Amino acid sequence: MKARTPPIRWANDHIQIIDQTLLPTEIKIIEIRTVAQAVDAIQRLAIRGAPALGAFGSFALVVALDESQPNSLLEAANRLEECRTLIGDARPTAVNLRWAVDRVIDEATDSAKNLPALRSALIREAQAIAAEDEAACNEIGRLGHELLRDANVIGTHCNAGRLATAGTGTALAPMYAKAEAGEPLRVLASETRPLLQGARLTAWELDDAGIDVTVVPDGAMASTVLSGQVDAYIVGADRIAANGDVANKIGTVGHALAAREAEIPFYVAAPTSTIDIALASGKNIEIEQRDEIEVHEIRGSRLTPKGVAAFNPAFDVTPNHLITAIITEAGVLRAPFEDSIADALSRVRGS
Amino acid sequence: MKARTPPIRWANDHIQIIDQTLLPTEIKIIEIRTVAQAVDAIQRLAIRGAPALGAFGSFALVVALDESQPNSLLEAANRLEECRTLIGDARPTAVNLRWAVDRVIDEATDSAKNLPALRSALIREAQAIAAEDEAACNEIGRLGHELLRDANVIGTHCNAGRLATAGTGTALAPMYAKAEAGEPLRVLASETRPLLQGARLTAWELDDAGIDVTVVPDGAMASTVLSGQVDAYIVGADRIAANGDVANKIGTVGHALAAREAEIPFYVAAPTSTIDIALASGKNIEIEQRDEIEVHEIRGSRLTPKGVAAFNPAFDVTPNHLITAIITEAGVLRAPFEDSIADALSRVRGS
Repeated sequence: MKARTPPIRWANDHIQIIDQTLLPTEIKIIEIRTVAQAVDAIQRLAIRGAPALGAFGSFALVVALDESQPNSLLEAANRLEECRTLIGDARPTAVNLRWAVDRVIDEATDSAKNLPALRSALIREAQAIAAEDEAACNEIGRLGHELLRDANVIGTHCNAGRLATAGTGTALAPMYAKAEAGEPLRVLASETRPLLQGARLTAWELDDAGIDVTVVPDGAMASTVLSGQVDAYIVGADRIAANGDVANKIGTVGHALAAREAEIPFYVAAPTSTIDIALASGKNIEIEQRDEIEVHEIRGSRLTPKGVAAFNPAFDVTPNHLITAIITEAGVLRAPFEDSIADALSRVRGS
Repeated sequence: MKARTPPIRWANDHIQIIDQTLLPTEIKIIEIRTVAQAVDAIQRLAIRGAPALGAFGSFALVVALDESQPNSLLEAANRLEECRTLIGDARPTAVNLRWAVDRVIDEATDSAKNLPALRSALIREAQAIAAEDEAACNEIGRLGHELLRDANVIGTHCNAGRLATAGTGTALAPMYAKAEAGEPLRVLASETRPLLQGARLTAWELDDAGIDVTVVPDGAMASTVLSGQVDAYIVGADRIAANGDVANKIGTVGHALAAREAEIPFYVAAPTSTIDIALASGKNIEIEQRDEIEVHEIRGSRLTPKGVAAFNPAFDVTPNHLITAIITEAGVLRAPFEDSIADALSRVRGS
């Protein structure tokens, strides 16, 4: 595989990210030096993917500290408290973002005795989150690879790869593992309207890694699956409820229905940081509604008649009964998910 | 409802159509004066919709006769024979096109004693096909209106309306009937990638008629339906097999799976000319594969990385067990469809 630009890099006093809104047409690195820039990058999806948002939000706290130039630990702590919501809630559905921001603030403010120590602690904790995510991706890749050993044609939705994590991805990690093992592999990437993360990002990063990838319109996946051309599905997750219901990119539940009808496995891959144990079921997951303009226009070109309305939910919820297994760094979780999820969390969080 | 330009008009020595590839941005009338122009208009979808293709293909035979300037009935008959495939098979899945072309040629050549009589017969038969389609739309509208009396929010896919027929449409005819009756109505139009017939054409014609229409990305329909926001689905058809399996625009079967999961009706509306009794089941329906470029680009702007492949099937097949009823001008057909379809055809075709 080729050397490539990491999607997030901490550069001593700012964050560097690839502006994912411009891919695959342009590979542009942007620098994040203020909280406003960080929130803007999150909200316009220059950086996206639940695990990547966790790492990005963590480093954004260092940016927040530097920008606010506090005169005391108390001032610094107050600014960081504001950032729990400013940064942590910049997108409402991806739980990893708020989870990471809370953890970094809590750990760093608990231990630091002065401002330089606070800054060092924030960086250390943010780097730990990125490193843990990278390790989680590797373990998800290993476990997913075992499950998908005999799957030559794999469907996925949106982008849950290198661009969405601090590592090799969640849903795409097993594909990188298969490719490295020299196994035959063809990936069908559904294009993922309205923002085309499948057509733009998944197609780009897999092609970049030399993996055979075919873009399929969202509506064309069902018949492709039903005609027996797909061996398995694997997708990422933005939030997982205690019962295993999964919020993921809009369109996911339609793929899950097609997979059940075709009797092929439907896997979800996500680190345990994606699990929100406080939510009993998917019914309680808040779904981000995005601007209608993302449906009405592509690259500034109007598709729909003026004055007509559009729906633009960013996520949907796939009920647990449509999910074959959830692949986490703490193991492959299966039904009954209430039990397997609680077990996994007790292993990693010790709760 | 406002006066509006008919999508197809016979203008004495040529056909006038709205170029549907330019809607809703531009309403441009183009003139069809040669067979090459007719085939091109069909293949690039300037004119589309199975019933509209039947009417258009019929009038295109008059254009073919005029263009070829035959010296004898035999020369004329030979040219028309060539047009059975040239025009009749310009798109492989929509059966109405070949059905109409065959019928017009057979009826006209059987009766005509000289060239002027042949031309008159072609026009008369083409006008009969258009008039029958208009009448079929009205009857489908009436029957569908009865079925959808209590449905306030209706989902549809692609465009099966005025723009797709010589009348008020198939799937959309009941919506026009509901609107005329002053019943509450909101239509959810799935955008229908790659060519966006829902976002462009259904949204345009319903909005033009003052009907509340919301465009929904294809992938967002499943969760919208599953959350209980939709009362019923109604879609058109391009070919219906003897057992009730339905070929329709790519994406249809995904909507049918969501409708079944949500336990809402899934109706198909089509004239009996859409039924291909020679096909035992949907497995035998040829699916048109269109150019990958329709997936890679929108309005000339590249969406996917260069060198990556794309799937672009134009249609999919919805199996009969996912269909609540097929609404035709010969009645509402229900399972077992083998019987109800055979009965309907014996009524209209006398076979």
